[in-house]
Amino acid sequence: MISDRIGLIDTSEIRRVFDLAAAIKNPVNLSIGQPDFPVPAAVKEAFIKAIQDDKSGYTPTAGLLSLREAIAEKLQTRNQIQVSPDNILVSTGVASILFLLFQASVNPGDDILLIDPYFLIYPALVKYHSAQLHTLPENFQQQDVEDFLQKGIKPKLIVYSTPSNPTGRILEADQLKLLVQIAQKTGALLVSDEIYEAFDYENKFISTASLYPEGTLTLNGFSKSHAMTGIRVGYIAAPAGLSKIVQKMATLQQYSIVCAPHPAQIAAITALKTDLSNELVLMKERRDMLAEKLAKFTEFARPDGAFYIFPKIPAHSSEFIERAIKERLLLVPGYIFGKDPNWVRISYAQKNEILEEGIQIFEKIFTDLQNGN
Amino acid sequence: MISDRIGLIDTSEIRRVFDLAAAIKNPVNLSIGQPDFPVPAAVKEAFIKAIQDDKSGYTPTAGLLSLREAIAEKLQTRNQIQVSPDNILVSTGVASILFLLFQASVNPGDDILLIDPYFLIYPALVKYHSAQLHTLPENFQQQDVEDFLQKGIKPKLIVYSTPSNPTGRILEADQLKLLVQIAQKTGALLVSDEIYEAFDYENKFISTASLYPEGTLTLNGFSKSHAMTGIRVGYIAAPAGLSKIVQKMATLQQYSIVCAPHPAQIAAITALKTDLSNELVLMKERRDMLAEKLAKFTEFARPDGAFYIFPKIPAHSSEFIERAIKERLLLVPGYIFGKDPNWVRISYAQKNEILEEGIQIFEKIFTDLQNGN
Repeated sequence: MISDRIGLIDTSEIRRVFDLAAAIKNPVNLSIGQPDFPVPAAVKEAFIKAIQDDKSGYTPTAGLLSLREAIAEKLQTRNQIQVSPDNILVSTGVASILFLLFQASVNPGDDILLIDPYFLIYPALVKYHSAQLHTLPENFQQQDVEDFLQKGIKPKLIVYSTPSNPTGRILEADQLKLLVQIAQKTGALLVSDEIYEAFDYENKFISTASLYPEGTLTLNGFSKSHAMTGIRVGYIAAPAGLSKIVQKMATLQQYSIVCAPHPAQIAAITALKTDLSNELVLMKERRDMLAEKLAKFTEFARPDGAFYIFPKIPAHSSEFIERAIKERLLLVPGYIFGKDPNWVRISYAQKNEILEEGIQIFEKIFTDLQNGN
Repeated sequence: MISDRIGLIDTSEIRRVFDLAAAIKNPVNLSIGQPDFPVPAAVKEAFIKAIQDDKSGYTPTAGLLSLREAIAEKLQTRNQIQVSPDNILVSTGVASILFLLFQASVNPGDDILLIDPYFLIYPALVKYHSAQLHTLPENFQQQDVEDFLQKGIKPKLIVYSTPSNPTGRILEADQLKLLVQIAQKTGALLVSDEIYEAFDYENKFISTASLYPEGTLTLNGFSKSHAMTGIRVGYIAAPAGLSKIVQKMATLQQYSIVCAPHPAQIAAITALKTDLSNELVLMKERRDMLAEKLAKFTEFARPDGAFYIFPKIPAHSSEFIERAIKERLLLVPGYIFGKDPNWVRISYAQKNEILEEGIQIFEKIFTDLQNGN
């Protein structure tokens, strides 16, 4: 009854925490991957107007031309990337884009290089496509890259998120240049997931395609920046030389997703023009508060962006999470993001008072474990 | 750069006509697979209220429980199907549901039985999954089924749309019982695509699951009935014994589509309560008008439902379509729906004056071809 391939994937652990959250009364939820602020008012207005104006039929498979033009302009002005609207595909979020990309490019046995810790969808897609997973540590330097190249592995894709989910780290320019080196030496394509781009607290973010346009696929969307996680609009932008991949992804979209929601695509055009500086200030304050508190008793890579912090804990994260749930605190266990399980993801996309309560519970569990209780 | 599997599918011909339509000034477009009336006012209001109320975050992967409960109630009261909301998965349209279903159930080499002519996504998915396509003619009777069973083929899925795209035919109770016979003898699952259910002009439609609950997967959505093609909400409902398939589809949805758009799911709850009798009367009048005109010079199976008619033409449909485009008339060529290419799909989801102009052009091309011009 069930296909062989579907046995390769299992329920997402984030979703499992999500389901637990639903069962707990009054949870202290620091597991959430979506902003606590609403969709910006102008975006909501555009969305509502689109519905009133009966923008409810199919759009072209690739997305509305007006949206793809607006995306191309955004990529040019904000990211220094020149892309034709013809080489942009709009779909129902970056997750859909990643799925279509893997379907359109990855054969069984292909090598895929990730940066550990990684967003949990990446290894799931690697496994689902019977590909081989390889990793670089997040703080990789020249030596790590040389060691990797020594192995003779030729990855088809190098997939990473910057700013990172789960660590909030933004890759340094030198690191991006090292990834370009790997790509040039092995023929790998760089797949830069920039969904957290808007949350860049040190003005540090660089789009990989601005350094290596001919070999980079840029993924982005509106879920995180504009609190549109449930609205489902994301996109991929490719250079002309990689247009075939986007075309093939669009062909598969015809027979599956069909198109991203029409009125949401219109709302997304307005989203691209919306100022997010207030939201950025708010999130930066939370990061600072959280980093200061956590620094007193644990270690973590100081996040430059996104809305996560990824501290080390004195136990396996599954044990930590179990204890946390008993105290109504929801976190995402670190073991799903990489090889080292003794970390946990805290999201600060949450109201300050909940955040502060959560950190108190977190510190208590942490201290208990450290003291062998 | 491109995976082997993606080479198995090609651009949808309906989309090609769609693109042509965009290039023609003032087209007489009878190729459209979406109603010409707007989304019902109450549904639009519910959609708008959901956006105002900030229903913009992730929903559970399977869809909002309130929507799944409303779907379960609809299936019980209107279709005499008992389904638990736990065994309903909401996704971005029936096309997404079909894709997830094939991914979750079909292995390379599996046999799939379709009814010819079939909706073009079905054979594309068969090919994409390296499965074997078999067909029964649409007017199949006992003898056809016996002949099929003689071959010893054990299909994994039997997939069909009733009312049918492209013919508008609704399967007879006797025919459904024959499909149940095949399912019982071979272990096949029945996959009943009921997206055109609302357009049933003879009060003839029967949900297969009401006859064979334990072996039928029911697919439906809001695209056609409520003119919500670009809103992207569809669903699958399964009996308890087939819950594993739905669970596995949901798992894959976690790593791809994530969830159907949140405010659209809320709008869909209202859609289920919306009276569509005016729209039905309008479409029935068009069917009657079109059937009367076409009956004077060509043959077709009289449509019971949907908003298509599928007449025979005196040429290969690709030649016919080429001539039609020169006259600004857009139709969908019959060769993409089945083995016999000398048919063409006319959609009457179009304003009456355009419909009448289209039929005049159609008759002229038809007569020219018949006369060897």
